Amino acid sequence: MTSLDDLPLRDDLRGREPYGAPQLDVPYALNTNENPYPPSERLVKALGEAVMDVAGTLNRYPDRDAVALREDLAAFLNGDTPGADLTSARVWAANGSNEVLQQILLAFGGAGHAALGFEPSYSMHPIITGVSGTRWIDAHRDEDFGLDPGRAVAAVEEHRPDIVFLTSPNNPTGTALPLEAIEAVLRVAPGMVVVDEAYAEFRRTETPSALTLLDAHPRLIVTRTMSKAFAMAGTRLGYLAAAPAVVDALLLVRLPYHLSAVTQAVARTALAHGEELLGGVEALRRERDDLVAWLRAEGLRVADSDANFVLFGTFDDRRKVWEALLDRGVLIREVGPPAWLRVSVGTPEEMAAFRAALTEALKESL
Amino acid sequence: MTSLDDLPLRDDLRGREPYGAPQLDVPYALNTNENPYPPSERLVKALGEAVMDVAGTLNRYPDRDAVALREDLAAFLNGDTPGADLTSARVWAANGSNEVLQQILLAFGGAGHAALGFEPSYSMHPIITGVSGTRWIDAHRDEDFGLDPGRAVAAVEEHRPDIVFLTSPNNPTGTALPLEAIEAVLRVAPGMVVVDEAYAEFRRTETPSALTLLDAHPRLIVTRTMSKAFAMAGTRLGYLAAAPAVVDALLLVRLPYHLSAVTQAVARTALAHGEELLGGVEALRRERDDLVAWLRAEGLRVADSDANFVLFGTFDDRRKVWEALLDRGVLIREVGPPAWLRVSVGTPEEMAAFRAALTEALKESL
Repeated sequence: MTSLDDLPLRDDLRGREPYGAPQLDVPYALNTNENPYPPSERLVKALGEAVMDVAGTLNRYPDRDAVALREDLAAFLNGDTPGADLTSARVWAANGSNEVLQQILLAFGGAGHAALGFEPSYSMHPIITGVSGTRWIDAHRDEDFGLDPGRAVAAVEEHRPDIVFLTSPNNPTGTALPLEAIEAVLRVAPGMVVVDEAYAEFRRTETPSALTLLDAHPRLIVTRTMSKAFAMAGTRLGYLAAAPAVVDALLLVRLPYHLSAVTQAVARTALAHGEELLGGVEALRRERDDLVAWLRAEGLRVADSDANFVLFGTFDDRRKVWEALLDRGVLIREVGPPAWLRVSVGTPEEMAAFRAALTEALKESL
Repeated sequence: MTSLDDLPLRDDLRGREPYGAPQLDVPYALNTNENPYPPSERLVKALGEAVMDVAGTLNRYPDRDAVALREDLAAFLNGDTPGADLTSARVWAANGSNEVLQQILLAFGGAGHAALGFEPSYSMHPIITGVSGTRWIDAHRDEDFGLDPGRAVAAVEEHRPDIVFLTSPNNPTGTALPLEAIEAVLRVAPGMVVVDEAYAEFRRTETPSALTLLDAHPRLIVTRTMSKAFAMAGTRLGYLAAAPAVVDALLLVRLPYHLSAVTQAVARTALAHGEELLGGVEALRRERDDLVAWLRAEGLRVADSDANFVLFGTFDDRRKVWEALLDRGVLIREVGPPAWLRVSVGTPEEMAAFRAALTEALKESL
């Protein structure tokens, strides 16, 4: 049988493995930073009804530009960040923020271009960059997973990348960036600056969103998702806010009709029930802070977190700890710096199971 | 305000316009080759229920590899083309066949690679190719919109492209390719050969699907869509059949979780109601053949069509005819060779409106 080696695959893809955490059926899935709170019965019914409302015309193509959805997203962001003052012309949406990022790479990157990020960070940034033919430059974060503005500026000035990725709160470390660091990069970046705010709704209130910088910086793109705080990972809806000209640029590379009529209807219904869906965020923030405190009390190192996950360590053999947890039905993520592990924040019951399993796992591995 | 010219857009995208037919609200939309028959009330209800079934877990990510959906698609193709003998390992799906094509370009194309097609053909082929950084080569079709195997082979041997696109039935001409032409190209192509069969279900029965060639040709990819015959344009579900190794290659470039849980559920429900959804195909075939005969009787040139649209002409000023139709509420498509127009085949009522409008338009423009 023909194997992958026999096919004329792009040379730079040879030897790669498909991206993705194992999708295992376990009692406690704390590995992909999902929101543990499912939609209510009321919302389930509303989603079904919304789909029935559009299903009668599914033989027709959807609104190619998803204008109504973008209006709703703009309204949501304006509520989330006072002063953002966004309109549909400044918001764009796609099937997950991964597709938003891919469109950015296709419009502003490609062969002969470079994108720079500060790792450890979201591992899809270098992958999407590479697949688009763009060169990836890792300027790495500081020891404490923060980003010193002076060092960030120096890296951007040295490499002059076409695209800079800043992730705040950062995945997998949970670290939020102060606005000053983002502004410092914006002042010197020769190209586009993407602030990936997938976890923004979980941030501690003293950390403002980069949305507040949009008016002053036409090359800034802030990306968001409905997969995390919004508890809609299964819907696949990512979006961005930027200058209208950035949206114009993405129209040149987006696949026509990329967002189905069903996705548009489901996402709009979810946004109309935003209060319910975001209702778990406050509880998750508290659970996160308790988890950080507990892990530190156990003598572990823990990165400060503004997200719905916590990076902890350090372990000489993290695989052993990961497996010991999995043996107890708790799936977390082996990701990021080699000696650390990442756990998503779940319900109180899930966190109790994680704590019990980790307590045993640590005894076992000592 | 910042304009697109002020942004660091890729040079080769400068001056381009976003792809897409005008989305106008008209009584008779015959411009995007949609199936005019909407889902029944029974199916609308089933779709709503299917979404409610998954909505309770939308806080979780979907099956990243959409295995159950791919099984259903394989079963559909096996029914459509006896002897195809496909399994989920040989089928892949994405948000519309555009995304399938983009993944093929990203895996096998890119900078330093070339894709070759025979125009006039589906205008997204060169666009997706260009956006991926792949060089596009137009080897153009014959005068009658067919493709002489000897000439096709010579073009492939001359340019040695990494990817060859063959479209059958071809858009916008409606021309089906004989298997011999496809086999001739497969014998000499140094890379992948994509047969775009978006309109396959409308073909006249004497034209077999390229699916029958898969077993003998591991570099053949046959793409399909649920947007046309399947009457699910609003769902955005495209798919392909190929060797399992081709699917392995696409796993390296696909965005993780690209297909939402909702899309997977809706597409599976549609497939389970395939008999209803495909129920209009026979009527559309008859309507198409009647339309071709009528247009010819009117003294127009008409390309033979195996699809759900008809290319007709020739006009010194096609824009004038297109506008005269639009004035009468009939929207068709200005696409393909300069003197021709394309009309989608609709319901008998829609076709009557088109004939009446065209009769007037032709008088007017004489």
